[in-house]
Amino acid sequence: MTHEFHINQPDTALCSALQKKIDNLTKPRGSLGRLESLALQVGLIQQSLTPELRHPQNIVFAADHGIVAEGVSIAPKEVTWQQVCHFTHPQGTGGVNFLCRQHGFQLKVVDVGVDFDLPKDRGIIDRKVRRGTDNFLHGPAMSEAEFERCLEIGAEVVRECAAEGSNVLSFGEMGIGNTSPSSIWMSRFTGIPLAECVGAGSGLDQAGIAHKLDVLQRSVDGYAGDGSPRDWMRWFGGFEMVAAVGAMLQAAELGIVILVDGFIMTACMLGAEQLAPSVKEYAVFGHCGDESGHRKLLDTMGAQPLLNLGLRLGEGTGAICAYPILESAVRMIDEMDNFRDAEITKYF
Amino acid sequence: MTHEFHINQPDTALCSALQKKIDNLTKPRGSLGRLESLALQVGLIQQSLTPELRHPQNIVFAADHGIVAEGVSIAPKEVTWQQVCHFTHPQGTGGVNFLCRQHGFQLKVVDVGVDFDLPKDRGIIDRKVRRGTDNFLHGPAMSEAEFERCLEIGAEVVRECAAEGSNVLSFGEMGIGNTSPSSIWMSRFTGIPLAECVGAGSGLDQAGIAHKLDVLQRSVDGYAGDGSPRDWMRWFGGFEMVAAVGAMLQAAELGIVILVDGFIMTACMLGAEQLAPSVKEYAVFGHCGDESGHRKLLDTMGAQPLLNLGLRLGEGTGAICAYPILESAVRMIDEMDNFRDAEITKYF
Repeated sequence: MTHEFHINQPDTALCSALQKKIDNLTKPRGSLGRLESLALQVGLIQQSLTPELRHPQNIVFAADHGIVAEGVSIAPKEVTWQQVCHFTHPQGTGGVNFLCRQHGFQLKVVDVGVDFDLPKDRGIIDRKVRRGTDNFLHGPAMSEAEFERCLEIGAEVVRECAAEGSNVLSFGEMGIGNTSPSSIWMSRFTGIPLAECVGAGSGLDQAGIAHKLDVLQRSVDGYAGDGSPRDWMRWFGGFEMVAAVGAMLQAAELGIVILVDGFIMTACMLGAEQLAPSVKEYAVFGHCGDESGHRKLLDTMGAQPLLNLGLRLGEGTGAICAYPILESAVRMIDEMDNFRDAEITKYF
Repeated sequence: MTHEFHINQPDTALCSALQKKIDNLTKPRGSLGRLESLALQVGLIQQSLTPELRHPQNIVFAADHGIVAEGVSIAPKEVTWQQVCHFTHPQGTGGVNFLCRQHGFQLKVVDVGVDFDLPKDRGIIDRKVRRGTDNFLHGPAMSEAEFERCLEIGAEVVRECAAEGSNVLSFGEMGIGNTSPSSIWMSRFTGIPLAECVGAGSGLDQAGIAHKLDVLQRSVDGYAGDGSPRDWMRWFGGFEMVAAVGAMLQAAELGIVILVDGFIMTACMLGAEQLAPSVKEYAVFGHCGDESGHRKLLDTMGAQPLLNLGLRLGEGTGAICAYPILESAVRMIDEMDNFRDAEITKYF
């Protein structure tokens, strides 16, 4: 059975009241730039003149990729399970951990299909579909049933977060090889030639990138599905990516603000948009990563990322780094007063 | 007597050890982008492999400007004292206040020359040199003695912050009219034509900008000093700007990390650099503001601002917004572990 999401376009009736409130805060109009547009967006999502951010969580979806057998990544596949263990170690000394601590994010790590028997004592959410996708050079990465299962896994985790009180979530991924499917999704759904969508991933050199492009082009040439966005994502999927798509769609359905991380998560938002265009109204793009193609993808989606710090780690790190700006926007509209109350001459 | 600052270039002997530590953290090399270069910079400033940020403070220098009489600003002069009262109100509902609260900054507001009898019960640091500068269309804004006094005021406040345990400071300003002197400093010290340095300030239209440029050009044409950077800053000064220059120089001398705010504070860093080029080694440029000329100024200074959010409020807001990124950099080098300890395959 096909999973359907029902996403409302936020009601824009509140728009003028929100804008009026923002314009009357004690600052020259527009002088807080992106904080003002973010406050408007969150106000619309929450349908409130006093929006609030509650219990932020970062959800890392992890899985392995059959395409890695073709040598498309410099990192060996074992790094997927090693990093999953690393993030969930009690000492919390991974890249995503210090950022979660700094910004008060709870971290959830979901095994959607890691090729390893992960430890049971780390709080890893076990939703393993299979130990990695099939190699899409030779056929679809996953079955239709697996695709639907992954959407539901993502959605289920988000419903759990909502039940815990979260109204802002960031999504990240861990899956060696996952820039490859992301590049294919990007090319398919934007029309940008594949060569412009393929980059270095975790550190390929020029020859490595050329090889990766060759493998991906041959994979795309071998596609024999029905051509729908769903089928495309299934054929060239990553389990963790489809789970992220389901998570984003569920988040939007529940009116949750979505912090979008790097290249892979942006490709997932692009995928989600194919299934329900309104999902993007709920998205805050955290950063423009260093992966070739990410800037182009963001531009094509009309997305204005908050940060541009050359990050390309994934795991949700870029999204979490951007969170304080989102928080500033909400504090601005909630905590600043207006010209009349502050008895300041309004000169514009 | 001329105030002299003795600023050391940070000793780069530690550079390779810092870089080695950063490169061995559990992430692909370089994948945390600007966080990595920031960690290196702070490590060098503090001469430590485990840098730390202590007791951040934002110091707002406030003063009025004689040039405002020429109609170079859309905002009336009274907004200077009104905003100073506003920032220091116990309710803390100004633009800078919510950001200070969010990021744990103490706020100090220093009256260097506001044209108003400010309340005594707000904790405003009273260092009023005079009730506003002279109109530099007709002669120097301040005397040589006043220039030196302003440098010392800034330096003194920074020494107090250091005594309180601060090792990271941001500087902001409140002074209606102060984009005018900033544009003149920028043009003089970079060689960029004045027309490219003049912008809308708090909201001038095209005719207003043309008038502002005309006034500033006639002011520059009337300059009759000795041509030194000191004299130029004195002639076209703002009391609050010269105090910020003194503060930046003192901060660098004490090994304090300097968070640079918007256009005016960037112009002050440029001014400080004229007196002691090493000061820039201690500077972290917080953001690229919306004021015309700011991007050009940053580019000319080789500065890479952390944020680009279209802010143009001043008060230190852009610098404080960038603070969490600086904190992330320090947490990265202090809290992440390395590949060997984490038992992760190092693949590069």
